[in-house]
Amino acid sequence: MADAAPKVRLFVDGPLGSGAEARLSREQAHYLFTVMRLGPGDAVALFDGENGEWRAVVADAGRRGGALVCAERLRAQTVGPDLDLLFAPLKKARTDFVAEKATEMGVRRLIPVFTRFTNSERVNRDRLRAHAVEAAEQCGVLSVPDIAEPRRLDAVLAAWPAERRLMFCDESGAGRPALDALADSRRLGGPPGPWAVLVGPEGGFSPEERAALAALPGALPVSLGPRILRADTAAVAALALWQAAMGDWRRQAPQAARAGEHTEICAASGPR
Amino acid sequence: MADAAPKVRLFVDGPLGSGAEARLSREQAHYLFTVMRLGPGDAVALFDGENGEWRAVVADAGRRGGALVCAERLRAQTVGPDLDLLFAPLKKARTDFVAEKATEMGVRRLIPVFTRFTNSERVNRDRLRAHAVEAAEQCGVLSVPDIAEPRRLDAVLAAWPAERRLMFCDESGAGRPALDALADSRRLGGPPGPWAVLVGPEGGFSPEERAALAALPGALPVSLGPRILRADTAAVAALALWQAAMGDWRRQAPQAARAGEHTEICAASGPR
Repeated sequence: MADAAPKVRLFVDGPLGSGAEARLSREQAHYLFTVMRLGPGDAVALFDGENGEWRAVVADAGRRGGALVCAERLRAQTVGPDLDLLFAPLKKARTDFVAEKATEMGVRRLIPVFTRFTNSERVNRDRLRAHAVEAAEQCGVLSVPDIAEPRRLDAVLAAWPAERRLMFCDESGAGRPALDALADSRRLGGPPGPWAVLVGPEGGFSPEERAALAALPGALPVSLGPRILRADTAAVAALALWQAAMGDWRRQAPQAARAGEHTEICAASGPR
Repeated sequence: MADAAPKVRLFVDGPLGSGAEARLSREQAHYLFTVMRLGPGDAVALFDGENGEWRAVVADAGRRGGALVCAERLRAQTVGPDLDLLFAPLKKARTDFVAEKATEMGVRRLIPVFTRFTNSERVNRDRLRAHAVEAAEQCGVLSVPDIAEPRRLDAVLAAWPAERRLMFCDESGAGRPALDALADSRRLGGPPGPWAVLVGPEGGFSPEERAALAALPGALPVSLGPRILRADTAAVAALALWQAAMGDWRRQAPQAARAGEHTEICAASGPR
């Protein structure tokens, strides 16, 4: 327990647990043993998205994968709110950005949706996943969001589950200020059930999509102020407002548990 | 008035006004006359940050600068809240990102601050300015934030003006949830005066900086939830919460005035 916190933190396939052996991908092995020059006996922090974070010790530093053995649990798994982010794919770098930011903001599932006016026609799920994993590794997040199969927005709305609320950013100016709408929704609603945030494409929603959204019982149109925001900005802003008004940013943050550990790469904005 | 809205929108030196002639930089002239192939008689939207947005007509398509003459005002100047963003410089791309996002979010002044644990030692103000101008041009924003001379945080805090409140993102976990803290501050305070948002560096604040912040009468430490956020994410999230709780996102958004105009580049998240 007196050991310094491991400097490297990796997401691996689980299940992790006391004495469990974790295998690495070739890329991870290359990073650990060639780039970082770790060897047998050195410690690494591992997480699998389900069983918390573990201090693991290098047992085999082989380049084809090597092996690590879990020694002790550093943090128990936490589960954030049941929050999906639906977003219309953007240019490559901005889509990467959305995956990264959604991970930091605690989104549980990323759902790329093709809309009538979506510019981008293709989504590389592996690439989105890689950006989400990297963000989780670097920012001390314990879960990596699922990346759903891209779908058409009209199909998603047609099959929308009744219990999930949907906050969407309404570019027509008809939405109420986001915090007012969320506060009312909290007053009216019972327990905070599953939610989703939808950020439209750069071309806005089509009349048909707008009608489908208006017909959805749990949909909450909101405004994000008087200036136009790019879609990636809108995603971060909308997630921040939702988390602060409805999600786990409402609680007093727990006291810093891991101060200084990820300081090279992560910001000083959440508790450690 | 029946003319279609101009497809190109540029920030120029003012003052703009009826019949005023605006000169272009070489880069702007190249973009308009070579890339976009505009010629005499074609219309462009211009804004100077102080006199609203104007429909201007090309009078001279010369490559050394050319000239445009303002024909009619498309939008009156609006003035957002008096909000500064203080941020510790990050890696180049993330600093660019902060300048872009702060512009979209309506920040009036960007102040790079060097802190004890700031990684980056240099700030290219021209580069920040260029990113802010581009964001304003592309997103229909009427003002470009000032980019202040980079300063040391301790010097900034030592000379802090008494009337300006300061919300800072406290990575120690001691800050209250941001919306609670802002709501109390609004209840207690009188008119919403000038504010600033401070996002710390990736290494957190030093004990001395923390003490200086604690001693500042108008400082409001806030928490941004249980996960660590990168500094650029924290900047967007903090600005969204401030604008929604204290700034101009509280008002019902005006009805769409410019629908479809910037759809290629801007998101469907604010009213047009």
